[in-house]
Amino acid sequence: MTQLEAVREGRITDVLKAAAARDAVDVSRLRDLVASGRAVVPANVGHTNLAPVAIGEGLPVKINANIGTSPERACVEEEAAKLRAALDAGAHAVMDLSTGGDLHAIRRELIAQCPAVFGTVPIYEVAVELGRQGRHITEMEPDHLFGVIERHAQDGVDFITVHCGVVRDSVARLQAEGRTCDIVSRGGAFLAAWVLANEQENPLYSRYDDLLEICRQYDVTLSLGDGLRPGCLADATDRAQVQETIVLGELVDRARAAGVQAMVEGPGHMPLDQIEANVRLEKRLCHGAPFYVLGPIVTDLAPGYDHISGAIGGALAAWAGADFLCYVTPAEHLGLPTPADVRQGVIASRIAGHAADIARGLPGAREQDDAMGKARRARDWERQAELALDPEAVRASRAVREALRRDAGQDPEDACSMCGRFCSVRIAAQALRGEALE
Amino acid sequence: MTQLEAVREGRITDVLKAAAARDAVDVSRLRDLVASGRAVVPANVGHTNLAPVAIGEGLPVKINANIGTSPERACVEEEAAKLRAALDAGAHAVMDLSTGGDLHAIRRELIAQCPAVFGTVPIYEVAVELGRQGRHITEMEPDHLFGVIERHAQDGVDFITVHCGVVRDSVARLQAEGRTCDIVSRGGAFLAAWVLANEQENPLYSRYDDLLEICRQYDVTLSLGDGLRPGCLADATDRAQVQETIVLGELVDRARAAGVQAMVEGPGHMPLDQIEANVRLEKRLCHGAPFYVLGPIVTDLAPGYDHISGAIGGALAAWAGADFLCYVTPAEHLGLPTPADVRQGVIASRIAGHAADIARGLPGAREQDDAMGKARRARDWERQAELALDPEAVRASRAVREALRRDAGQDPEDACSMCGRFCSVRIAAQALRGEALE
Repeated sequence: MTQLEAVREGRITDVLKAAAARDAVDVSRLRDLVASGRAVVPANVGHTNLAPVAIGEGLPVKINANIGTSPERACVEEEAAKLRAALDAGAHAVMDLSTGGDLHAIRRELIAQCPAVFGTVPIYEVAVELGRQGRHITEMEPDHLFGVIERHAQDGVDFITVHCGVVRDSVARLQAEGRTCDIVSRGGAFLAAWVLANEQENPLYSRYDDLLEICRQYDVTLSLGDGLRPGCLADATDRAQVQETIVLGELVDRARAAGVQAMVEGPGHMPLDQIEANVRLEKRLCHGAPFYVLGPIVTDLAPGYDHISGAIGGALAAWAGADFLCYVTPAEHLGLPTPADVRQGVIASRIAGHAADIARGLPGAREQDDAMGKARRARDWERQAELALDPEAVRASRAVREALRRDAGQDPEDACSMCGRFCSVRIAAQALRGEALE
Repeated sequence: MTQLEAVREGRITDVLKAAAARDAVDVSRLRDLVASGRAVVPANVGHTNLAPVAIGEGLPVKINANIGTSPERACVEEEAAKLRAALDAGAHAVMDLSTGGDLHAIRRELIAQCPAVFGTVPIYEVAVELGRQGRHITEMEPDHLFGVIERHAQDGVDFITVHCGVVRDSVARLQAEGRTCDIVSRGGAFLAAWVLANEQENPLYSRYDDLLEICRQYDVTLSLGDGLRPGCLADATDRAQVQETIVLGELVDRARAAGVQAMVEGPGHMPLDQIEANVRLEKRLCHGAPFYVLGPIVTDLAPGYDHISGAIGGALAAWAGADFLCYVTPAEHLGLPTPADVRQGVIASRIAGHAADIARGLPGAREQDDAMGKARRARDWERQAELALDPEAVRASRAVREALRRDAGQDPEDACSMCGRFCSVRIAAQALRGEALE
């Protein structure tokens, strides 16, 4: 029985309990949200070390970090280091997008080390296996794809990205309207190429019931991928993208009917003024399914800083109702991220998600911020570090400044190089309370 | 004659021409904007190496970088390095907030090296001079303050931050309502302390006409500082902040009447959902005066990453109509920025401003982004670097990857470690055009 089937019978599962406790929300409220499909609790029956988390309407925003090898850089230890960096920085989910090395072994190793929700994109493995035989993705046999999906399900993958909406009709609309940047989703490009070369419908769509059967068996949550997401601002919210969202909405209904949890993925690259509309569109067309957005980045001009442009878009998307943010790292558009990039990406997304939680007025969302304000007034540096999203960064910065003061024969405890004796906080605190200035 | 007096007579000054050319806007439109006070062109008659820039309604967003010494770290070479970092990263304005070393010499040296708009906060110098005599800011003589302001004007400072709105009435409201973080503006804290200790009105308010006379003589633009800006989310948009904005609006009118250009400063720390309201409030209360905002940062929990939280708030503010963004660096709340921090801060603010320019539909704002989309489809790395906000970051990342490929005996030209042969862009380009896959 899947989580969705269980909650529909009114049951409170252990997974549900754990997820509700984590967000400090009422478990019966979460049960009703999951039963309606407006929240998901991805939890493969085989992911035994999972610390469950809920994603959806009215819940704190969750963060995903993508890691994984490439054909030219495939080292399991390096990916394990990225996994640790992601977990340490506070990611709620991790996706293994590996395309190099022994994919099966890498995946199993990472899942074994991962208490966070674990996701994959199975079609990558199909492309890699074909490639090693000197064949192209256009030669993919649908049974091969479904076999790989079942393998991922058996390995304990909690959610899979499947680009079921890259159907012939959507691709035709893309070709007719034209695009600046074609298709930038790898899965989307694979399936569009397959559909065009074979003049057949996308097997993830035509055999969607087979997909649902696998997911139901292992309780894998579907992440309905936006294979036609825009790859630059100019392509945002075009006909192909919206067409695909309509199809994904229909597939959400079918997943729910089959007892399978589903969320929907979104762009990508998007001007600030289109973000809210995209969130509302997804929520309406997909009947409230959780919305999982990549970025969105709000300018194409920031390679090297796309975690920042992604945080801007992510904050706006989450404020408008997006539930799950896929991070963007400083390495985006340049290469694979290092563990340090992973950390930067997760923290940037957490800033975006937290800012949105505050703006949406989630209960308790601002408590830590208010405590930080008090710690700053008290000039309590250790408390500021404790409260920070990245305590290490604060402590490291403090240590450098304290050492400089010690070297200069000054009191290291009062180390604040910003203002020294012209500290506004101290002056104001004394003046407003009628005390003499120090 | 000031720029404001000149444009009111319908004159097109060289300063105005240069500023219009820089933004590719019609010079007579800019003249009318400046004449109405809805845009400013800060240009001290003594800043001979200035490359003028306009700030205001409907113009591309401009970026300011704060630099300056502290009592414990005062090295003119280091500040010159920060200035170069800010200019190199694309800052339109730089403020020297020095409080350590020979302030006059540092300021003159920096202005001599600075073609960007140059700003200061004169009251800092008063506090430093008093401090060196073992006296407190509460002992400030108003004539001392006005003397320092005149010195800054003589040195060629284009705009000065003056906290004229920290009046007794505003401070009383702050005390009555109470705050989590008191006052975090240094100038604001100085003047609140002075007002309370002396039981007299803020001299920048009571002798505002003297201030206007100095500004008119040297054509210094007023940046009416928000000395009571919130220092944490909890204090945002409180009565003291709004009271001060009302007063600043009245002072804008008086500046305009005196032929002096004026802009208004804004917060600071602010939840996402209050940013648009704050911009609209300023624009209404201050009769369209350009709005110069610091950040705003949208969570208090991100020390070490406040350039990111500031970019989120800055993008929203600028989209809503803020005209001038004061950067926030990763060192904010931790210490003085290094030149590397300065670079990060300027780029983060440029991302925010540019994203807003696109969202506001400014003519041509998206051209470079569209060119980037094309360069990505063409996998033209050098073109991507040229178009990037930070070309160096792209080239450095490419160089590392090309070296790795060369070491591995691979073709360095095709260096993209992200996807290798599973490149969505290449596959899509070929498939959508009916070509065989490589």
